[in-house]
Amino acid sequence: MLTEIINVGDELLLGDTLNKNVQVISKILLPLGVKTSFTTMVGDDRENIISTFKIALNRSDLIIFTGGLGPTHDDFTKEVISDVLEKELILNKDLLKIIEKFFKSRDIEMTENNIKQAYVPKDSIVLENKNGTAPGFFINYLNKKIVLLPGPPREVEPMFKEYVVPLLKLNNNSIITKTINTVGIGESKLETIINEIITYYSFIGIATYARVGLVDIRLTANLEDKKMTNDILEEVCEKLNIKLKEYIYSYNNKKIEQVVFELLEKNDLKIGFCESCTGGLVTSKITNLDGASKVLDRSIVTYSNDSKMEEVFVKKETLEKFGAVSRETAVEMARGLFERKNIDIAVSITGLAGPKGEENKPVGLIYICLVAHDREIIIENIFKGNRIYIQERASIEVFDLIRKHLLTEV
Amino acid sequence: MLTEIINVGDELLLGDTLNKNVQVISKILLPLGVKTSFTTMVGDDRENIISTFKIALNRSDLIIFTGGLGPTHDDFTKEVISDVLEKELILNKDLLKIIEKFFKSRDIEMTENNIKQAYVPKDSIVLENKNGTAPGFFINYLNKKIVLLPGPPREVEPMFKEYVVPLLKLNNNSIITKTINTVGIGESKLETIINEIITYYSFIGIATYARVGLVDIRLTANLEDKKMTNDILEEVCEKLNIKLKEYIYSYNNKKIEQVVFELLEKNDLKIGFCESCTGGLVTSKITNLDGASKVLDRSIVTYSNDSKMEEVFVKKETLEKFGAVSRETAVEMARGLFERKNIDIAVSITGLAGPKGEENKPVGLIYICLVAHDREIIIENIFKGNRIYIQERASIEVFDLIRKHLLTEV
Repeated sequence: MLTEIINVGDELLLGDTLNKNVQVISKILLPLGVKTSFTTMVGDDRENIISTFKIALNRSDLIIFTGGLGPTHDDFTKEVISDVLEKELILNKDLLKIIEKFFKSRDIEMTENNIKQAYVPKDSIVLENKNGTAPGFFINYLNKKIVLLPGPPREVEPMFKEYVVPLLKLNNNSIITKTINTVGIGESKLETIINEIITYYSFIGIATYARVGLVDIRLTANLEDKKMTNDILEEVCEKLNIKLKEYIYSYNNKKIEQVVFELLEKNDLKIGFCESCTGGLVTSKITNLDGASKVLDRSIVTYSNDSKMEEVFVKKETLEKFGAVSRETAVEMARGLFERKNIDIAVSITGLAGPKGEENKPVGLIYICLVAHDREIIIENIFKGNRIYIQERASIEVFDLIRKHLLTEV
Repeated sequence: MLTEIINVGDELLLGDTLNKNVQVISKILLPLGVKTSFTTMVGDDRENIISTFKIALNRSDLIIFTGGLGPTHDDFTKEVISDVLEKELILNKDLLKIIEKFFKSRDIEMTENNIKQAYVPKDSIVLENKNGTAPGFFINYLNKKIVLLPGPPREVEPMFKEYVVPLLKLNNNSIITKTINTVGIGESKLETIINEIITYYSFIGIATYARVGLVDIRLTANLEDKKMTNDILEEVCEKLNIKLKEYIYSYNNKKIEQVVFELLEKNDLKIGFCESCTGGLVTSKITNLDGASKVLDRSIVTYSNDSKMEEVFVKKETLEKFGAVSRETAVEMARGLFERKNIDIAVSITGLAGPKGEENKPVGLIYICLVAHDREIIIENIFKGNRIYIQERASIEVFDLIRKHLLTEV
């Protein structure tokens, strides 16, 4: 089934909004054996929506639209699709009631323009939207399936899972994929190490994808026999595991902070962070996870020198002699935080995220210190890139350090 | 000039990687008067890249590719484009030296597969990549311009600004846009308020875009006379300002935390946060900004009850009687943080980000308290959505509260 996603909205093309819907939909479709072949973004322009839709009708079997279903005057995906397919729009009174109820339950006034959302293309199946007012639509047209969904990803995701997937009636037997996530090795180096394996297993897809501080390896196979496919993927995974063992942190796209969270939870350990240059980023990655309170006790963002002295007892002399960005300050920060009872592992991060460096200290210089009951580790790194990159890279390094500590010492 | 972006890479279609390059490129092109009309994402598949390129050649004048220029075996954008345009690939020795130098400067071993990146399509202009190894290419083909860039956004952005923009030789006189950013009002409500203005000025584009907790209004005009266009946009802005004054926080797409940062800096005030349910998110948004140390003294993430008592002196009785998520705890958290010298404004956030609520307390219940020298404000909200949404929404509410405080009281 050739599958195509079309995202409608000027905001996507003007750079205001990052399009997250391709990712949201692909992540649901792929495990069901459906690989998206094309995705197009097009602005709120009738002619361009029509031409994009016609190209899609010509090459794809499943066409998924997002965006342009809202109440405002520049939302007209539904109208354009109905025109092209020659399906008239009909007022649906049940739908109108649902929309009225939505506004009432949130105690928001329902404005006139919302009535537009109760019009339904003839012969289409209405998809309820529990997180917004614009419903979606599923249309069978000749041999093709056409899906219309609203724009916000938090509305798209539940609607796609709950209503669209069952309507697609998939057999779920075509593609099998596996992902191996690595940390601490660059993409070219990694590919050189596994090159022999890629060549030997040329009948399955083995591709590498670099992210900040991380490289993923994705295996994709599409063989006749499902069991054989699984066996071969297992075999490749084992071979990759031998070559890359020290770098692999997950086999199923877990975030590295999720891996650390699970290791902490399993060992019943509490962690705390003392962040300077990463300014809360490391802590917020942990608190993004469900159940974070099981492993996180507290964190302190000691941005000023005063706060480093007052909150985590860094000595004035240390700051004067070595500076806030130094091995010595990092150690005192972590030790100071570790003095709180309830913290089994204290990790500090201090560095220069930029844009400016200091005398003798380049932008990107980062010290990380981990203090546990029976161990201290200090690492020094220089990362090259802009402020956001350096902060992100440092946070990955922090989680990798904790991961290695928990795997080897606990 | 009809403009089209094509992003190549299985990782974009498999949901592994969020495509940020459309946003990066559009944000550079738009102020230069170039609006992107289409963008397509296509996987690492020769046939699909060829068909996408042919559609683009048929309708667009400027075609920008990202991705598929790397060293690995599934990178072949350059090869496919060269084939379609019938331009052979030639080894460029200067380029080879630059790539060798890049690896040497970072002390990374250069593997064999990187040599591939030194091959150049005939008659193309090579675009240097200072942040990676894959160079880009600019090709004039008949009346069209074709640009090939690597995949990582942090490589794309500087290459596009530094090399591609000058090569496009733009006249810069077609589109003028303005954006007004609002907070604290929903999209339908906002459009109802400004509907008269939209109707009256139907000859210019006025569109609204909802983000989490925020709504942007974008004005786009494309009239003959540049001065007249500017005057009319000014006039519309003034009218919108009268209707929406209390909700507007920026006229130029500044982030709300940037607006808060500038207000704090202007008034020479230091802020500190005591975060519970947002877990470092608010602080990390401030520390993402260049120069954050001018306004941020310190923050404390008090995730456990112990940490609330020990770090910010919340009373045991308060926690027992009202719970960690309560008006009373929020107030004591902010007051406790405010006791540190150097902090002029202390803001606390406590709430239930989910997935679980508590007895009598729903998921999404959030208390925010701001303590300044002569004022305390407490707000209570219930946000509906998942954990990440609630945290993000709460952080917007925090910045809006600080903004309003600084505008009215300081």
